[in-house]
Amino acid sequence: MTRMSFITFLTDFGLQDDFVGTCHGVIARVAPDARVLDLTHGIAAQNVLQGALVLRHSLPYAPVGVHLAVVDPDVGGNRRAIAVCTVGGRVFVGPDNGLLLLAADDVGISAAYEITNPAYRLEEVSRTFHARDIFAPAAAHLANGVPAADFGPKADPATLIRVAVPEPDVGTSQVSATVLVIDRFGNVALNMRREHLDAIGLANGDRVEVRLALDRYYAIVAGTFADAAPGELILYEDSYGLATLAISRGSAERLTGVAVGDELRIVQA
Amino acid sequence: MTRMSFITFLTDFGLQDDFVGTCHGVIARVAPDARVLDLTHGIAAQNVLQGALVLRHSLPYAPVGVHLAVVDPDVGGNRRAIAVCTVGGRVFVGPDNGLLLLAADDVGISAAYEITNPAYRLEEVSRTFHARDIFAPAAAHLANGVPAADFGPKADPATLIRVAVPEPDVGTSQVSATVLVIDRFGNVALNMRREHLDAIGLANGDRVEVRLALDRYYAIVAGTFADAAPGELILYEDSYGLATLAISRGSAERLTGVAVGDELRIVQA
Amino acid sequence: MTRMSFITFLTDFGLQDDFVGTCHGVIARVAPDARVLDLTHGIAAQNVLQGALVLRHSLPYAPVGVHLAVVDPDVGGNRRAIAVCTVGGRVFVGPDNGLLLLAADDVGISAAYEITNPAYRLEEVSRTFHARDIFAPAAAHLANGVPAADFGPKADPATLIRVAVPEPDVGTSQVSATVLVIDRFGNVALNMRREHLDAIGLANGDRVEVRLALDRYYAIVAGTFADAAPGELILYEDSYGLATLAISRGSAERLTGVAVGDELRIVQA
Repeated sequence: MTRMSFITFLTDFGLQDDFVGTCHGVIARVAPDARVLDLTHGIAAQNVLQGALVLRHSLPYAPVGVHLAVVDPDVGGNRRAIAVCTVGGRVFVGPDNGLLLLAADDVGISAAYEITNPAYRLEEVSRTFHARDIFAPAAAHLANGVPAADFGPKADPATLIRVAVPEPDVGTSQVSATVLVIDRFGNVALNMRREHLDAIGLANGDRVEVRLALDRYYAIVAGTFADAAPGELILYEDSYGLATLAISRGSAERLTGVAVGDELRIVQA
Repeated sequence: MTRMSFITFLTDFGLQDDFVGTCHGVIARVAPDARVLDLTHGIAAQNVLQGALVLRHSLPYAPVGVHLAVVDPDVGGNRRAIAVCTVGGRVFVGPDNGLLLLAADDVGISAAYEITNPAYRLEEVSRTFHARDIFAPAAAHLANGVPAADFGPKADPATLIRVAVPEPDVGTSQVSATVLVIDRFGNVALNMRREHLDAIGLANGDRVEVRLALDRYYAIVAGTFADAAPGELILYEDSYGLATLAISRGSAERLTGVAVGDELRIVQA
Repeated sequence: MTRMSFITFLTDFGLQDDFVGTCHGVIARVAPDARVLDLTHGIAAQNVLQGALVLRHSLPYAPVGVHLAVVDPDVGGNRRAIAVCTVGGRVFVGPDNGLLLLAADDVGISAAYEITNPAYRLEEVSRTFHARDIFAPAAAHLANGVPAADFGPKADPATLIRVAVPEPDVGTSQVSATVLVIDRFGNVALNMRREHLDAIGLANGDRVEVRLALDRYYAIVAGTFADAAPGELILYEDSYGLATLAISRGSAERLTGVAVGDELRIVQA
């Protein structure tokens, strides 16, 4: 049995309640030597797509280990609990609702298992807090070196639920994009990457129009905040590779009022 | 001296300021090998009852160790600082205002001590931040194996302050209940347990009326969110055993506008 | 090479996004044995002065180690990345914008270095997330025992950017002060210390007038909350030595509506 030191942990639980702390307690009782790295617990409540995206973005920076993630609107229903093994020795643990799959597919899935073995859960399992009763114990036992195959029957990776990431609609001089994530600085990340900027011929220094419902804004394509004047709207490639609207020393979210899921158009100006 | 690896930590400090981090620093200087598990720092400011309830709920899932908790509106006044030992080797540290006692009484108190020994506090003790200057150092020394009896004079457990948890008022066909905790998902936990549901003959699938001031809502008694349609109000037993109002994929708090401490009635419909 | 166990970590990233968790991941990959103490990630976005003050306040309570701090509005621009060594063996890591210097100057700077050596950063360096790509790896390598001198050319400590902390304006019977920090309890810390209270002859029990624009409030100079009646406004020396307005079991921020940076006058009453 290979012990794994690190368990990364991502949820939509927030830190106001004891949900995260209680899961830390459960893990510490089962695997006192494991170290838990909280990736974030700030995913919007029940937003599986956002959780999947953030897990995909942060995972390459995390040490190899167990990757526990829980955004689980269907807890207590029929969705499966799964452990997904990838090349390189990572194991993802969480609900089978797409949350784990953007990250796991990126790395390359080698095997998947349902988590059904009662030996590796708490004695009493509630119907609404599987993070505490099923997922955290499973992650801890994995960290202790229990093989994923001991958790339950093999699951065909092709049958695992996947979430669709909306794709931008690329025209000749404009792109229709969707807001994927807005961060605490008010930076607005779109479902566009460098290739979509290239497709409509945009380069650093170019000016674009941002059309959001009836509003129009002008932005400069830039490499970083320092390339623009304070207060100026920029469109830059963020540190995860997403085309992102931002304002140097300001908030693009506050200026534009956009929300996650909104559509907007980026047009050559 | 028995070293204890784990210190759990619960406060109303929030994470916006450095209060929690500074206490982590103090602990690390005294007991560099201790591991601190943050249960939560999101207790509502100065709400001792809420802190006591959350500590009671999360404690059974925490490893045996030192249990540091600080919600301390009377800091700097006459309230005592205490260390409370329980069967099974747990030691609770915090103010003598009831915060520790719901959890400690559940486990069973074996002895209690006032924390007065200047050897186990910081050299300078402020009048407003005893978590940093008295409680965190005490917890760290306990983790290092200092016996609780070294901290100060014995305190009679019967003299420790206890908080009253409001009890529901159970009639023949209705229960008057109080809102104890509202979590980040907007789930509204009441001071009712399974026995109170049973007392008015409610079973899963039954319909109840929820009366809140002049408002009336209908809810289904359910086992989990998946037993109701999205958007439907349910009354379920939460993962800590409290009867709780919730909305599948929604927020019962937002729907009803209730706040902690509000009273409402659950009536057979 | 001396290994250092502890890396303290302070930012304005908040905990909603994965920024902090991703940096924890980067550190764990480079220095799996280092322990990261989060001082706070709740500094107001891009508020370098607040970050510098909070780092200064909490540092004396932190174990000797590497002190990573990132509030970095000019990321990607010309500001330098620096490692600042102090007497006692502490090493501060962050942007050269004043953030580290209040704390480092307090301790006493022994040497400073630019962080330019590509061996100690991630292979790909983004233009907007240097905490992840440059600062966290540098902190981790320092924790592993890499000498600060290996990171890049020596920087003259006199050339490092410093932030000005506003000084109060002390008259014969009044002090004009600036709000430095407001904590989660609504306590309003001013740029006044005991010496300024002494300068206008204020002692515990005295009554003062607080003038804020056109508003007038009366406060009692007190040692702690318990010295005043619940609901009463007090002026006390907080646990970091700053004269602070507070309300026992209430919020001075909510009462007065002040914000960080506001000026007010404390007048003998």
